[in-house]
Amino acid sequence: MKREAEAITDRDNALFEAGIKLGALYHQFSGTPVSTESAESLENAIEQSVSLQPWVSAVTAKIDREKVRARANEFGYCELRGEMLDVTVVIRYTTVEARVRVQYDKERDYPLMRIEAVSRLNR
Amino acid sequence: MKREAEAITDRDNALFEAGIKLGALYHQFSGTPVSTESAESLENAIEQSVSLQPWVSAVTAKIDREKVRARANEFGYCELRGEMLDVTVVIRYTTVEARVRVQYDKERDYPLMRIEAVSRLNR
Amino acid sequence: MKREAEAITDRDNALFEAGIKLGALYHQFSGTPVSTESAESLENAIEQSVSLQPWVSAVTAKIDREKVRARANEFGYCELRGEMLDVTVVIRYTTVEARVRVQYDKERDYPLMRIEAVSRLNR
Amino acid sequence: MKREAEAITDRDNALFEAGIKLGALYHQFSGTPVSTESAESLENAIEQSVSLQPWVSAVTAKIDREKVRARANEFGYCELRGEMLDVTVVIRYTTVEARVRVQYDKERDYPLMRIEAVSRLNR
Repeated sequence: MKREAEAITDRDNALFEAGIKLGALYHQFSGTPVSTESAESLENAIEQSVSLQPWVSAVTAKIDREKVRARANEFGYCELRGEMLDVTVVIRYTTVEARVRVQYDKERDYPLMRIEAVSRLNR
Repeated sequence: MKREAEAITDRDNALFEAGIKLGALYHQFSGTPVSTESAESLENAIEQSVSLQPWVSAVTAKIDREKVRARANEFGYCELRGEMLDVTVVIRYTTVEARVRVQYDKERDYPLMRIEAVSRLNR
Repeated sequence: MKREAEAITDRDNALFEAGIKLGALYHQFSGTPVSTESAESLENAIEQSVSLQPWVSAVTAKIDREKVRARANEFGYCELRGEMLDVTVVIRYTTVEARVRVQYDKERDYPLMRIEAVSRLNR
Repeated sequence: MKREAEAITDRDNALFEAGIKLGALYHQFSGTPVSTESAESLENAIEQSVSLQPWVSAVTAKIDREKVRARANEFGYCELRGEMLDVTVVIRYTTVEARVRVQYDKERDYPLMRIEAVSRLNR
């Protein structure tokens, strides 16, 4: 197999940074005890911590209350799992914008990370 | 060495549960990106997630803004480290109350987990 | 309610330290990608990292291959969950030995942390 | 500002997946107790857990023993920090190969994640 090295682009960096943010938040917050009452404080902490990071222009984090309720133990809470998360991150790297998302995929029955859109910004 | 097994007491369970809570929150939240602006949302998420757990009767979580500021990178944030945390958890297990705390120890230069008080509750 | 403060004992510290270790390892390693092939390397990493910590005299970590296999996705792995873990930690604090364990509880359908034995050591 | 949506490419996915892997492992393993003796078991666990994931064709994980030694507490260990890590991940997504790395950057004094190479594969 031949390998042809290519120049690294802004677009490459936009996608790379987008992936880092999803991978990081997923493994940082999975496992946190959560209830339907505390979910909002956790969404808030996720959004604020991701927003701090370089190239992030927007974040929305939603935790599925139905899934939390369904999983709740006798004490009324469960651990946050990837399948309860719906997080969208928008990265802007110079003139490229990438919107990525982690969201439960019903068919495959696991949380899927995917690229939703890549755009070129013209000022 | 001889080993004499003894009956497990409520007091044993109170201390055991107290340790679990500190160990858990420490490793759950360490590493989260944090700034002086986002610290409050993270304190809030810590308090709410610990409060959910069995036998917890009180939690207060403080993040040291000075240490966050001192550690901040060029983007204005750092990762949450144990040394920035001051968290007190009160456990009530039947008639025993244990108050434990993780807090930076200046002399040893690391975050120390310790028992602050054990009390018997008389109604 | 009246509260009577009592002196903190070695036994209190043994149980507190035991709880810290279980809470910490649980939240440190939950979420790690694992397969039946990689489980041993993860057991090994858990045992070695817990063994380093003060007052720990023994650790054994087992990951349930059946549960890993049952949870595996189309790529042959899953995330490590508490319910797959069976970890026993023995703490020695001066003359007190505490053996604690996190293990899946079938009846309650969640990983239960409990004290298995508290012993007095006589030399 | 105008936004022009563009088609998502294999190359986009290669970089996105590469970012996910680095972000994930960083937040999964940071905080683990580590000594110069246990570092190898942790490197091994990191390599094996990352290798399991889709599109990963190679992983090498190194933990800086000097930094571990320098940070070690009175018990001979410290927590794994990003600055001790040097991890390279190679992703192959159809005909695109991306090599990415997290490594301590001396000048900036923090662990930097970056793209090292993007190649087109010709069979």
